[in-house]
Amino acid sequence: MQRKNTKILNDPLYGFINLPGELIPIIDHPYFQRLRRIRQLGMTNLVYPGANHSRFHHALGAMHLMKQAIDTLRNKGISITYNEEIAAQAAILLHDIGHGPFSHALEDSIVKGIHHEELSLLFMNELNKHFNEQLHDAIAIFKGTYPKKFLHSLVSSQLDMDRLDYLNRDSFFTGVSEGIISSERIIKMLDLRKDELVIEAKGIYSIEKFIVSRRLMYWQVYLHKTVVSAENMLINILKRAKELVRSGKQIFCTPALKIFLATDYTITSFRDDDSLLPNFALLDDSDITTGVKVWANDSDPILSQLCTRMFTRRLFKLSMSNEPFAQEEIIETKQKIKSFFKINDNDLHYYFIAGKLSNHAYSPSDDQINIVTKQNEIIDIADATDNLSLKALSRPVEKYYICFPKEII
Amino acid sequence: MQRKNTKILNDPLYGFINLPGELIPIIDHPYFQRLRRIRQLGMTNLVYPGANHSRFHHALGAMHLMKQAIDTLRNKGISITYNEEIAAQAAILLHDIGHGPFSHALEDSIVKGIHHEELSLLFMNELNKHFNEQLHDAIAIFKGTYPKKFLHSLVSSQLDMDRLDYLNRDSFFTGVSEGIISSERIIKMLDLRKDELVIEAKGIYSIEKFIVSRRLMYWQVYLHKTVVSAENMLINILKRAKELVRSGKQIFCTPALKIFLATDYTITSFRDDDSLLPNFALLDDSDITTGVKVWANDSDPILSQLCTRMFTRRLFKLSMSNEPFAQEEIIETKQKIKSFFKINDNDLHYYFIAGKLSNHAYSPSDDQINIVTKQNEIIDIADATDNLSLKALSRPVEKYYICFPKEII
Amino acid sequence: MQRKNTKILNDPLYGFINLPGELIPIIDHPYFQRLRRIRQLGMTNLVYPGANHSRFHHALGAMHLMKQAIDTLRNKGISITYNEEIAAQAAILLHDIGHGPFSHALEDSIVKGIHHEELSLLFMNELNKHFNEQLHDAIAIFKGTYPKKFLHSLVSSQLDMDRLDYLNRDSFFTGVSEGIISSERIIKMLDLRKDELVIEAKGIYSIEKFIVSRRLMYWQVYLHKTVVSAENMLINILKRAKELVRSGKQIFCTPALKIFLATDYTITSFRDDDSLLPNFALLDDSDITTGVKVWANDSDPILSQLCTRMFTRRLFKLSMSNEPFAQEEIIETKQKIKSFFKINDNDLHYYFIAGKLSNHAYSPSDDQINIVTKQNEIIDIADATDNLSLKALSRPVEKYYICFPKEII
Amino acid sequence: MQRKNTKILNDPLYGFINLPGELIPIIDHPYFQRLRRIRQLGMTNLVYPGANHSRFHHALGAMHLMKQAIDTLRNKGISITYNEEIAAQAAILLHDIGHGPFSHALEDSIVKGIHHEELSLLFMNELNKHFNEQLHDAIAIFKGTYPKKFLHSLVSSQLDMDRLDYLNRDSFFTGVSEGIISSERIIKMLDLRKDELVIEAKGIYSIEKFIVSRRLMYWQVYLHKTVVSAENMLINILKRAKELVRSGKQIFCTPALKIFLATDYTITSFRDDDSLLPNFALLDDSDITTGVKVWANDSDPILSQLCTRMFTRRLFKLSMSNEPFAQEEIIETKQKIKSFFKINDNDLHYYFIAGKLSNHAYSPSDDQINIVTKQNEIIDIADATDNLSLKALSRPVEKYYICFPKEII
Repeated sequence: MQRKNTKILNDPLYGFINLPGELIPIIDHPYFQRLRRIRQLGMTNLVYPGANHSRFHHALGAMHLMKQAIDTLRNKGISITYNEEIAAQAAILLHDIGHGPFSHALEDSIVKGIHHEELSLLFMNELNKHFNEQLHDAIAIFKGTYPKKFLHSLVSSQLDMDRLDYLNRDSFFTGVSEGIISSERIIKMLDLRKDELVIEAKGIYSIEKFIVSRRLMYWQVYLHKTVVSAENMLINILKRAKELVRSGKQIFCTPALKIFLATDYTITSFRDDDSLLPNFALLDDSDITTGVKVWANDSDPILSQLCTRMFTRRLFKLSMSNEPFAQEEIIETKQKIKSFFKINDNDLHYYFIAGKLSNHAYSPSDDQINIVTKQNEIIDIADATDNLSLKALSRPVEKYYICFPKEII
Repeated sequence: MQRKNTKILNDPLYGFINLPGELIPIIDHPYFQRLRRIRQLGMTNLVYPGANHSRFHHALGAMHLMKQAIDTLRNKGISITYNEEIAAQAAILLHDIGHGPFSHALEDSIVKGIHHEELSLLFMNELNKHFNEQLHDAIAIFKGTYPKKFLHSLVSSQLDMDRLDYLNRDSFFTGVSEGIISSERIIKMLDLRKDELVIEAKGIYSIEKFIVSRRLMYWQVYLHKTVVSAENMLINILKRAKELVRSGKQIFCTPALKIFLATDYTITSFRDDDSLLPNFALLDDSDITTGVKVWANDSDPILSQLCTRMFTRRLFKLSMSNEPFAQEEIIETKQKIKSFFKINDNDLHYYFIAGKLSNHAYSPSDDQINIVTKQNEIIDIADATDNLSLKALSRPVEKYYICFPKEII
Repeated sequence: MQRKNTKILNDPLYGFINLPGELIPIIDHPYFQRLRRIRQLGMTNLVYPGANHSRFHHALGAMHLMKQAIDTLRNKGISITYNEEIAAQAAILLHDIGHGPFSHALEDSIVKGIHHEELSLLFMNELNKHFNEQLHDAIAIFKGTYPKKFLHSLVSSQLDMDRLDYLNRDSFFTGVSEGIISSERIIKMLDLRKDELVIEAKGIYSIEKFIVSRRLMYWQVYLHKTVVSAENMLINILKRAKELVRSGKQIFCTPALKIFLATDYTITSFRDDDSLLPNFALLDDSDITTGVKVWANDSDPILSQLCTRMFTRRLFKLSMSNEPFAQEEIIETKQKIKSFFKINDNDLHYYFIAGKLSNHAYSPSDDQINIVTKQNEIIDIADATDNLSLKALSRPVEKYYICFPKEII
Repeated sequence: MQRKNTKILNDPLYGFINLPGELIPIIDHPYFQRLRRIRQLGMTNLVYPGANHSRFHHALGAMHLMKQAIDTLRNKGISITYNEEIAAQAAILLHDIGHGPFSHALEDSIVKGIHHEELSLLFMNELNKHFNEQLHDAIAIFKGTYPKKFLHSLVSSQLDMDRLDYLNRDSFFTGVSEGIISSERIIKMLDLRKDELVIEAKGIYSIEKFIVSRRLMYWQVYLHKTVVSAENMLINILKRAKELVRSGKQIFCTPALKIFLATDYTITSFRDDDSLLPNFALLDDSDITTGVKVWANDSDPILSQLCTRMFTRRLFKLSMSNEPFAQEEIIETKQKIKSFFKINDNDLHYYFIAGKLSNHAYSPSDDQINIVTKQNEIIDIADATDNLSLKALSRPVEKYYICFPKEII
């Protein structure tokens, strides 16, 4: 492959991002361009007004970090070909292309039981056909079948470029910012032992800080009460809209959205019907936003009520607890909702949501983060640090919540 | 007025923004909340992918700087009451509330011949009624009728809080960033002489840097070729959609947008018909974005072509020149377009746009920036600096452009 | 007290620092100005070349944060007079004025058994006399005898302005930087319950991050092997210089340094002899630096050897261990040193140092950090967080080290 | 040359600086290490307390930017060997090694009529001998005799890595900071035409901003009144110390400083006497600082007076004017000084200094900054921009000053 001219993009985080010439056609494809119109953090901007950054920008940022990681490994003597460099960058660039609007919130509302990575793979296969098999190695890296396993780890693991970018990017744009140096530092500490990614011992404290940051981002941003409430309401809005459409009601929506409101599609449907992916690719945040705005005046009282609340920011109240809520409390609350809103049991779920949040800052059972000591031993980070804090962070934290209109109290 | 509890918002630029309790109901009103869904820089994110910041965020930022400016002036012995502080903050908060989606691009496409400040004033009057005349002083400051004239200057002048925020914010989110310190520095240099805002002499170089930054932002961001081309195409898309709607064709669009496509409304219309403002307030970027996406498949070939190009990023080529383009060149280009696209003279304007850009980094004829010397003299900044650079920057720069599909060449 | 004009200083961390007019004469006094010539982090610049920031700058930064803290508390309804504001700022400004050159390294080498805070108090009393008792309240706040106890806590506690500034400042100038937002955030979360400083519940994660950062700074910066080695060598250099001077040898040094090399002074000496403090106030880093440079050519082989090594960066090797070093290893190493350098037991301590480092990221036994919950309960932060990490961080970490010339191995 | 392992250093500006293994021995040499103890900005920390950064740090930063520039040029197809990369980095690393303490202030006080670059070359030759001719190409690049002329331009021209680093670094540490992105941006715009460095046309506005920043730094930092006054006083202190030493008086000073106080050495002296360079290499800021402190108590009234003033910050007043000062004003001022301080004409120059400052933000007569247009034309930047501002900045600005103790007025 002859090297092509790169383009340069401005990035508030990294200063500049180089786009390798080989990947520009993929970036320019409408399937990828649509990520410009999908916010990385869905409705988080309701709480953090700066959080309007797109999935497009995140994907480019992760690609930029991939290049840094590859340069670092090469400097330490690891052989990585130029083709592999481009393939690994393509893999991380496209790892999230399967996301729909407002995911993760709507991951299970627009389609049914499909993890976004399955859709990402469908998109990659589609683009691979379109671009004459140029994505062959990228797909292998993404799926983990490429011989150099560590390239897959850079795409998907507890220290992958995805996380290193999104934690920084999300904290930067929310303003819960603690600088971008730690990603850079972690990448400089990467090395390889037996084809496995490891971190040099002197990087331990940076990793620890990274894991703590991650936990902080979970509770302050990703699982912020207001955001969780708004997401649950949006899920219910979509659910109601589907119910109405399937009962034959005409409601305003874009043609592409109508397709997915009318029928529940599974991954098999996508494989069987070639027209589904292009239609899915037409969806972005604006389809949902215009829907919610127009539906606020819909004749259906439930849809109208939910959308009006969303639109005027009268969100459901969300209560959180370390213990599951008592059954009596739940029953009593449901009762109040039914009498207050004069609804029946069938529609109750639109006004009362119960759920569980969990946050696993570091999960050694998945794939552990390995540290290589000066004596060349390889140990799990949770064993390498000098105290219990990372061990502590390895335990998942779970919180229970209930969510409902606060005027009933 | 008893002081109410403030709320705190994260801001990547300033760290934190305090929302005065008195202004929270106004910020929470749907008329203001809609600014969350209008990008400050329209389609600039096509070139600078970080530029997704909203008018909502800018308005809060300008309000934050207003507080800094008032604190600075008070520290220098200027008397400003708490009521005036809140009123000045309200005035800057609402100064841009009249913006529609994708303005400035669509300022003259959605409504007719209305400057957004006229709509801002209509919104303020509406909110003033709603909130029991609490915005009385804010409106006076905005209009320039409040006795302490300098409060109006903080809202609207060559060194107003609007500019100090947006230049910083736009450069921050585009990544054409040179830090936020200069706004802070300029504000610390503010003082008053004879009820007029002045800058302390030692602030001269910061002002000069500010003016140069402004010019840089004009050419690198606001008047970037790609952005100007995309804006012109969007204007033509709206023009075509209007033409079709008015000729009786049914095209997909949100109910609120349909109102403004069907009829050209002037400021008089808004004054006569109370229902217009609430409908205008329903519009945001998503109405336009969904329109463009759906219209790409419209049966009208011109609308479809323009929208498809926009959607797939095959933008018109834009040529720029310091001199007006030769008439022969224009005629020849138009001829090529007509034969290439097989269109008649009536529709030619959809494929060929000629225009002029100008950039006035510092305009002493408007309202000059006054410097107060150590000898207490007041002089125009262009006279105060030690060389010709600011005098040079006072002259407007004009560029001519033509814009058309590049495949005709 | 009539308010006096403030001055403005540039600070890379905070943008600007305001110097209250009342404190300018104290800042301008040579006793305070000498802090300009004492590096905050001693020899840390050997590892982190940016770490040249002075104690002067840190003291001003802590004063700046004190103002932020007072403003925050006032906004929450706590009454703090202007006099108290100035006094609290003076107290934090002067809290470290007793530091000598290269402290903490030389804290016990230049004087004997005197904690720098005792010297700070002597300086404050001196300045108080000089400035007509204007520091009366500042001294009370510093000593903890002022009625509003929380003012003392802002000067000295686990969340005092000293720490909030130095952690940020040290991480900023070393480049181990993770931004300055967390200090700002923590300060915004300060509140008062029963005259005790507390942190609002939503600040928990910021505090946790702060404590983790603190631990990271300890291991990566404050207790960095190279720094600890260089400090130990410098202590030995001073020890040898003292020994030589006291044995009657003439060695080059500044007159002020000679006084402290010739005799060991205790806090009682300072109280008894008024001339000691002014002489101590003449010392700064340059007295030590010139000494080391000139002594590298001294006729005493030990002094010359130590100084040459320091000067040419051939520092002692430092080995660290979680367990105390085995006695046999120590004896063997000492033996090798004696034969290699041909020295006797008396001088062995110049070439072999054994010590212990400890790091207490959060110490609940001292004065705990209290969190006030939404239910208005007050709990220790280590109990408030949702997992064990802070409990883990509450345990002190200890490391043992030995330090000697590496050529003996 | 086989590539050696790099080391990584933290830098607050660039995050990290890579030290190429080949250059580590040079960096570790005491001749280079001494730059750690020489502040880049001399006494500027009197005004900007953060400005304690060392010449050591700047040299490493410039070396880092050199690597960026070389990478950029290589990406554009320019062939640069690894040896050339290391040589160019060595050249910029050592370009300022000839600086003495407090230069530029003392450039003509410690030695006589020697430009620091001449000393830099002596040092390089010395190191070249020591390191077996490894600096051969670096010296050729430094002197401009290396065939690829553009490598010399990267070391010394109007857009060299020296300037790109120091402007950023100085603005960063003074806190007159406007970010570091513009250097990065300028470097990305570098290209080559006919072996000459050029800037791509789209970099024009960044260059303009760079030049304006440079002017701002001149007036706000480098030529700040307080700094100029302090520097002039320090020059006079050295002058007086020399006069005393040469008249046979014993004054305190380090042995190395004594050599240069006793005799005026020229570049010829250095070439003739091999012992001079090693002695010069012993000098750093601490020799001067201890001198000034001790001399404040010297028996000579002029030396004592000047040093006491410096030490207690009672600096001379500096008046500035666009025109030369009137002869009568000067005579009258001198008269007042003589009678106030009771000194004779011979010593008057210690208390009265007249001088001229000039600032040439962009000097097209030296070596112009060339822009390459899209049409591949090469034009001077002052002709390429769209208005007069750069032409204006090309004219030198001169200011006249007089400087004397203010109590005489």
